[in-house]
Order: sequence, then structure tokens, then C-alpha cells
Amino acid sequence: MLLIPGPVEVPKSVLAATSLVIDHRGNKFKDIVNRLEKLMIKHFSSKRVALLTGSGTLAVEAMVYSFTKRGEKVLALSYGEFGRRLAESIKRRGATLRLYDKPMGHSFSLEEVKQIIEENKDVTTVALVHNETSTGIALRNLEEISRFIKNKGLKLIVDSVSGFAAYQLMVNEWKIDAVATGSQKALASVPGLGFVAVSRDGLNEMVNEDLPTYLDVSLHLKFQDKYETPFTPATGVFNATLRAAELLELEGVERRWKRHEACTKYVRDALSYFGFSLLGNENNFSNTVVAAIPPIKDYRAKLKEFNVEIAGGMGELRDKVVRIGLLGIVDDRAVMKLIGITARMFHSQYEKEPPLECKLPEELREEIEWS
Amino acid sequence: MLLIPGPVEVPKSVLAATSLVIDHRGNKFKDIVNRLEKLMIKHFSSKRVALLTGSGTLAVEAMVYSFTKRGEKVLALSYGEFGRRLAESIKRRGATLRLYDKPMGHSFSLEEVKQIIEENKDVTTVALVHNETSTGIALRNLEEISRFIKNKGLKLIVDSVSGFAAYQLMVNEWKIDAVATGSQKALASVPGLGFVAVSRDGLNEMVNEDLPTYLDVSLHLKFQDKYETPFTPATGVFNATLRAAELLELEGVERRWKRHEACTKYVRDALSYFGFSLLGNENNFSNTVVAAIPPIKDYRAKLKEFNVEIAGGMGELRDKVVRIGLLGIVDDRAVMKLIGITARMFHSQYEKEPPLECKLPEELREEIEWS
Repeated sequence: MLLIPGPVEVPKSVLAATSLVIDHRGNKFKDIVNRLEKLMIKHFSSKRVALLTGSGTLAVEAMVYSFTKRGEKVLALSYGEFGRRLAESIKRRGATLRLYDKPMGHSFSLEEVKQIIEENKDVTTVALVHNETSTGIALRNLEEISRFIKNKGLKLIVDSVSGFAAYQLMVNEWKIDAVATGSQKALASVPGLGFVAVSRDGLNEMVNEDLPTYLDVSLHLKFQDKYETPFTPATGVFNATLRAAELLELEGVERRWKRHEACTKYVRDALSYFGFSLLGNENNFSNTVVAAIPPIKDYRAKLKEFNVEIAGGMGELRDKVVRIGLLGIVDDRAVMKLIGITARMFHSQYEKEPPLECKLPEELREEIEWS
Repeated sequence: MLLIPGPVEVPKSVLAATSLVIDHRGNKFKDIVNRLEKLMIKHFSSKRVALLTGSGTLAVEAMVYSFTKRGEKVLALSYGEFGRRLAESIKRRGATLRLYDKPMGHSFSLEEVKQIIEENKDVTTVALVHNETSTGIALRNLEEISRFIKNKGLKLIVDSVSGFAAYQLMVNEWKIDAVATGSQKALASVPGLGFVAVSRDGLNEMVNEDLPTYLDVSLHLKFQDKYETPFTPATGVFNATLRAAELLELEGVERRWKRHEACTKYVRDALSYFGFSLLGNENNFSNTVVAAIPPIKDYRAKLKEFNVEIAGGMGELRDKVVRIGLLGIVDDRAVMKLIGITARMFHSQYEKEPPLECKLPEELREEIEWS
């Protein structure tokens, strides 16, 4: 049982769909591109979604290079490893970076964002991370932050690599210019595909020079107008991810983010009960990653004996913290198994059962065994 | 039977290996990274090989951004669509581009290269395409061109996306600083992985600022020192490509490029016999793509009726030319089938059989059926 913050366990039919090699200029592949973009547009509630062969970081970096300019003043609000990587990309892009970096375990309140923007009136773009995989902390207040930033007339770009499909996220309605994500997180596909969702407003904000072609979102969208990709796509990963997007459609994006919220809450409550110290608080808990300091030293190694893989900490928290990824198709059975094993470690029990919201719809339930 | 200039038909065991989702920070994946880089170093005869999740174009662009600087004068020798794309990447990188662009169907002689370099004494880097998929033309004289350029003290970067493993290519010995390729060409893996091979000399020429992290070859190599990748890799594509690299090891890289040479020669001779006009001449024929003007209009469509897929032309040759990709594990059976169908179209026969060099070793022969 793989419970790291991505790549995730994937549905059987998604894994089976990876074995496809076809002519990427033929009609069969065009149909895949067409259907995949349409589904992703719906899931993001965006105007367009660029499909990039590569990782989530590629999508984030393509977004940075396509939505900011050399010399432009860009504000980055960071509260963890991926925020700092976002800032690094902005710097490498040649933009003038203003970095606000919070210690791990914290995030930004709306009031803080307001004040920072007040202090940086010359900034034209704001960049931030929706969900920090490194710390299990999220901007649960993304909607109000987005609306505030857009009301100030600023561009907003969001790294939601580990957030998409695990939270309500409405790119058009919240007026976010662009959002980046990856295939191997809450979408529950195999790794190898990055997405940049662009809102109606965002379509007018893209640059198409002074950036690599591979990172040029406008170029990708131009080819997708003809249901093609500008470069040879990982055909198997596209096919698998189309299946994953169909399964998300089947579950419904609202039901999926509620499942993520319910499963992480169940695990947090249980770990608290067993004496783990959780990072974060009710206002900024992540829906996808539970980060905690275990009361015993070898929790991660002991889980591994039961064939359950979780992750260690990142950055300054590397040795202290464990991170449990509950993304994708993690359900009541998975979290009960995790907590059951944990309870036995402490020669104890955890009486509560996961709520109904943790369950997968029947068709999806059959796609995974959690053995 | 897929005979386009990539993606190619892949061995059964390569396709089967695509279905792998594992923790990319775990020991099993580290073993894949370690073995894959080691094999690719051997196949390239290079010092290092960066492994990038993405297309061949990503590898080419990562090479351009990692081996040239903003404002540096870079000479591009182009003789087709991919040469012009290489030039476009150099321009986008912010280098000062000197472009020599030959009409499609031609390439550069050593004498021409000497003269061009004589005329451009302020240039510090030369960029060129080894094998032009767009026209079925190659720099068969790459070794002598490389040695000349390096003797002049210039940096040399080569797009060999469709050349690697189909020609002799020795990155260290020929003193090429960097060579880019992709997984889905003569290596015969699935699409989704790009490679940048770096020579001993080239290791000292890399820049690591003013470029996106995703395109930063030095960053990739730094992580590969620990058998990791800097970003989430397409684990299935890595696993499949390791298998493909093992099969190349089994065949031997010399035997593989001789097979490519023999198969394309067989097809060229046969098509000439049936009245096709071939692009290029004995000095610049490609070992991987046969480009020709058929004597009948619907050759490509007719082949499709027999379930054989070939490609049309690119750029200015889009409607005139057909392109037959003979890369990867194409063997005597595949080319005989192609020529047999073609012969029947002309109510004719082709008496010659493919030479022994067209055969795959027995273990590889069982990996594909050509039905």
C-alpha cells in the first residue's frame, strides 16, 4: 500500500491503459487529446487546460515562464519546500522576485496577504502554492485570497500540483489566471503528465517569446486547438490519464474533494489519539497530506514491515516528521488499514470508523484492493 | 505495423514494463536510474547521460539552455524542420543566432562547414541535427565535422533524437559536448523520456543559472549522482526504457546501427525499383527514415488498407512526400512485408531478399510479430 504524497496507487484500468503506443498524429490520439482536455476543463472549471508530457514541476515552471515576464516584479508567498521551488523558478525566469517565506507548519491568512500586497504596490503578479506537500499545510482560504488579489488587478498563478481535485477549486469563477497540477496526485493517474489550467482572463496574459518552446503554454494550446500536442507525447501516460479523468468524472469532483477531506480528517484524529503531534491547525490542514511527529522513532519503518509505504519529512523537517499521502483513490478501507496497523503498534484500538464520505463509488471501489 | 518516424513499435517486454508505479525516492527506483544511466553512458560512449521525463524536443531544448548562454553567438546548421526548431530554441534562449538553412533534401559537406566557420569567427558554439526526420537526410559525415569543429576550439551540441543507435556515434571520442535523444526512436522504447549525453569535455561547459530547473542538465546529473531524479519521473516509462536499453545491450549498439543501415538501404533500393523518387543521395541518406515521392498518389492510404502506417511529408514537402520510419526493432520481416505489399500494388515483384544484417538477434526477434 503506497501512501506517499504521490505518485499514488492507481486504479487497475488506469494502469492497464499505460500500454499504448500509437501514431500521435493519428485520429485515435487526437480523440484522446480532445476528450482529455474537455474533461480537465470541466474538472478545473477553467477555459483551457494545456497537457504537457513531464512532471508537475514542469507544469509549474511552464506556468511561471508563460505568465510572467523578465524583469516583472513577482510576489511569491511561500510556506514550504514547493513554495521555495516556485520562487526559484521565478528567479530563474528573470523576473524580480519578492519572496515572503513562512516557517514550515504555517500558512498565510487573508489579513497577512492584504498587508503584504499593501507593502508591495509595484508588484504585478502573485504566485503561491495551494497545498504544501512538504508540510501537510494548505491555503484553505485560497478562494478569498484569489478574489482579493484579482480585485487589486494583479495576475495570480497557483501551484496546485497536490491540491487539484482534493479541494474545491474553480479557476474561472475565482479569477485565477493559471493553475498547474500533475497527473500522479489526486487525479490518481500514473506520473508523466503536467497540466496548466488557464482561465478566461488568463488567456490574455500569456507570453509567447523569451521562453523555451517546451514551456510555452500558448504553443501547447495552439496545437490542442487541432487536438494535437506540439511535441511527441507519452502516449501511454495520456491514455492512462484520460481513463483517470473519466473516473474522476464518474465520481464527481465535489465528491472527490469531500472524500479527501474526510479521509485526512479521520487519519489526523486517529493519529492525535495515539499521541502524534500534527503540523498545522484547523485553518490550514491539508486535504492530501498528513504531516506529524510520531511518538515513536521507527513508525515509518514499522509500517513498512506491513507493506505500507509512507514518506519522511522534507527540508528542515527531514528527520523529525512523517508524511502520509492520502491522495487519489484512498478510501475507507485504506485509512482503516493504516489506522488498524498503527493501533496494533501501540497495543491499542481506535473505535471510530471512517465516515461515509470516505467511500469510493462502487465502480471505483473495484479498481483497487489495498492489499 | 507502425512505420512512422517514431514513436515506433516496441518489444513486448518493453510495453509490459510500462505498468509500474513505485515510490520514486525508494531503492527500487534508484536501481532503475542507476542501471539506465550506466547503460546509456555505454551506448553513447559518453561521460554522463541526463534522464528527463518528456519528449526528445525537451532533451534538445535542455541541451540548448544548458550549453549556451544568453548573448552568446551560436551557429546553427539546419537542413530541415528539426534544424529550424533547434534554431528557434537557440533564439528563445536569448543567444545570438547565426542560421545557415539548406533546402530540404540537402545537407552539409565538411568543406561547407569549414567555410561557414571561417566566415563566422566570433561564434563560440555550433548546433546541428544529426538525422533529419523531416526529410530522411542525415549528416553521415558527423564524425569528421565534429572533429573539425572541436579542433577549432568551439563547443558542439547535436540533436540526435532520431539518430542515436542508428549510426555509429561516440560522444567522448568525437569530442561532442552534448547530444540529445529520445526514448521512442531507434532505442525502441515508449515515448516519454529524453536524454542528454554529456562528454568528459562537455561536463565543464554547462551553465546552471538563467534557465528553467526542468531544463537544467547539471541539476539532473546532480540528482543522478544519488540515483535520483530532481522531479517526479514517469516511473513506468523509465522502467520500460531500462528494458529497451537492456535489449540494445543484448543486440549490441554496432549491430543495431548496421541493422538500421541495411534495412533502410533495402527499402530505398526496392522503392527506386518501383519508380519512387528518393530524397537525398548516397552521401546523406538517413539510416532511419526513407523519404520519397511515390509514383502513385495514394500510396500511404493504400498501405493503410493493409494496416501499415507510414507518415506524410513535413513543412514544404507535406503533400508531396511520404516518410517511412524504419527505427527501433524493424527487421527483415518488417521490410519484406512492406515491400511485398508495395510490389503487389504495382502488380509486380521484388526478387531481392533483405541481407543478413537486417535480422534481429533471436531473443529480440521473439519480441515482435509484425502482424
